Amino acid sequence: MDITLSYKDASIFYFMLMNWLSSVDWRQDEETQMDRRVGFAVAQLGPVHLQDTKTAVVVRLIDMLRQAHARGARWVTFPELALTTFFPRYIYETPEEYDIFFEEGLPSPAMRPLFEVAKDLGVGFYLGYAEKTEDNGVTRRFNTSVLVGPDGAILGKYRKIHLPGTVDPIGDLEFEHLEKRYFEVGDLGFPTFTTPDARIGMCICNDRRWPETFRVMALRGAEVFMLGYNTPTRNIHHPEPAHLREFHHRLSLEAAAYQNAAWVMAAAKCGSEDGFAMIGGSAIVAPTGEVVVRASTEDDEVIIYDCDLDLGAYIRRSVFDFARHRRIEHYGIITSQTGMEIDP
Amino acid sequence: MDITLSYKDASIFYFMLMNWLSSVDWRQDEETQMDRRVGFAVAQLGPVHLQDTKTAVVVRLIDMLRQAHARGARWVTFPELALTTFFPRYIYETPEEYDIFFEEGLPSPAMRPLFEVAKDLGVGFYLGYAEKTEDNGVTRRFNTSVLVGPDGAILGKYRKIHLPGTVDPIGDLEFEHLEKRYFEVGDLGFPTFTTPDARIGMCICNDRRWPETFRVMALRGAEVFMLGYNTPTRNIHHPEPAHLREFHHRLSLEAAAYQNAAWVMAAAKCGSEDGFAMIGGSAIVAPTGEVVVRASTEDDEVIIYDCDLDLGAYIRRSVFDFARHRRIEHYGIITSQTGMEIDP
Repeated sequence: MDITLSYKDASIFYFMLMNWLSSVDWRQDEETQMDRRVGFAVAQLGPVHLQDTKTAVVVRLIDMLRQAHARGARWVTFPELALTTFFPRYIYETPEEYDIFFEEGLPSPAMRPLFEVAKDLGVGFYLGYAEKTEDNGVTRRFNTSVLVGPDGAILGKYRKIHLPGTVDPIGDLEFEHLEKRYFEVGDLGFPTFTTPDARIGMCICNDRRWPETFRVMALRGAEVFMLGYNTPTRNIHHPEPAHLREFHHRLSLEAAAYQNAAWVMAAAKCGSEDGFAMIGGSAIVAPTGEVVVRASTEDDEVIIYDCDLDLGAYIRRSVFDFARHRRIEHYGIITSQTGMEIDP
Repeated sequence: MDITLSYKDASIFYFMLMNWLSSVDWRQDEETQMDRRVGFAVAQLGPVHLQDTKTAVVVRLIDMLRQAHARGARWVTFPELALTTFFPRYIYETPEEYDIFFEEGLPSPAMRPLFEVAKDLGVGFYLGYAEKTEDNGVTRRFNTSVLVGPDGAILGKYRKIHLPGTVDPIGDLEFEHLEKRYFEVGDLGFPTFTTPDARIGMCICNDRRWPETFRVMALRGAEVFMLGYNTPTRNIHHPEPAHLREFHHRLSLEAAAYQNAAWVMAAAKCGSEDGFAMIGGSAIVAPTGEVVVRASTEDDEVIIYDCDLDLGAYIRRSVFDFARHRRIEHYGIITSQTGMEIDP
């Protein structure tokens, strides 16, 4: 069979072909192949008062877990010390006084309903809690988070390393910050967990102010940093302008995300707990350092984002290609020297 | 002599005393004693084209130095590679082609007029330049900055450690970024210099994206970070949204300042050099992480701020008291491992 095209037909064919070719967004296409989109939610918790029961708090957590799931989340980040009020603001003398705030076992009895619903829904989560454990007959207490997979498997724990505040009360009229009194420094390093969706690292609250936290996790390949926090609205250590509290929080998240080309999920417990105000500002930050969703209340609130786990890949291939650009031979004192030392 | 006060007189006296006491701002008073205020300027440089002579550029630098001095500056930060166009965007094969961009000796002949005027005015400065030096008969080239004191003394040099870009051209149609081709990695670490006004650390351009840079200097007591930069407006490594270039620059400065409770002086060479656009955004950032002055042009522009060198003191006493809070036992891989390594 012979096919004879008139010049006009050929022109039309050529025009259609060119039109189709130009309509293809090749870059988009290439990137679509790489897309690993996963729904991540942050569940911000409003105030938990001293008299609130853990049972009541877990009902609120489960309610937010269900909201997150209904909106497409595969993972939820809950706050630090999510089951009780932020008790390190109070002065207690003996373990008998403060043990009520701690959990034993994983899941502890109080957490169990949350673990069950999450497994039923197939949602993984990060949960912060006060951990009490027996270690060779010695009782130890940590400010801990646990990572649970969508299948209900406990992937691992993180124990807070950068404990802020003091051991002894500073005598502030309003409140204290006694994390160094009630918790030991974490002994598990900054772990990173490989899941089918992403490599996830965990840290807690004050850890976010330290670039070392995120660098350690990024060197192990973390693509998502999950963190919960309780941050008093007032700085009891210095009468600084109030706006700095939220600014420093946000700046820490943005820098962590950008400098490591990773997603950040930051969940506040916030609002006024028995009169003691804490900042909100729960956020999801993209590997570009941009806040992409932000909570607007200081109460229970779920935010969610459909995260492309490969968005950070171009940053890790270029400006932050650690292997090509880091110069550890010049970083020595970061790990050999704890405090500031000024040459005479 | 007997003094008898009526009840009314005593009341008035008591009222006046209380009134006086309450009018005294004790905190302000305490902090005033601590104030160490010093004028720091940042001298942003507009485009320097290939055909511009170093002599002409130095005239512009001196003009800005005089402006800064007239407005009260004791120190001026000039940009990276301030004497020539940003030549690493071009491909040169042999040293004969690119040696015209380099300086020998300190001050080099081209710099000498700047050094002389600065000494006359009693103004210290940071200046970035391409350094060529002989070392045991071997020619070495670095991307360098020098710190000169208000008395004209050369305090020391810094040689850029985090060289961005590539050794070989990537073949971008518009321009290249060949710092790894023309410069060796710096061999002087991140030095900090003690001056009567402040302890000053230096870094250059891409160094600002790496938290390690500032942490090393802060551990040595730096209170001021000076840095010059040349940052192309377009990212040739990835077609990212243009606004990210300025955002990442600003985020890096803010994080460096806050995480180390230090002042940041950041000086751009910017605008369109022979058609190749570079971002401006020169800024002075306070130890709170807040940008306190910012250049508004992409041309020669002096910005200045009366910096309280003790503003960061409360941060170094509390949240960033390194000695109390850093946990180097958990930071190990920051200095033992260069690239990302993912556990199987």
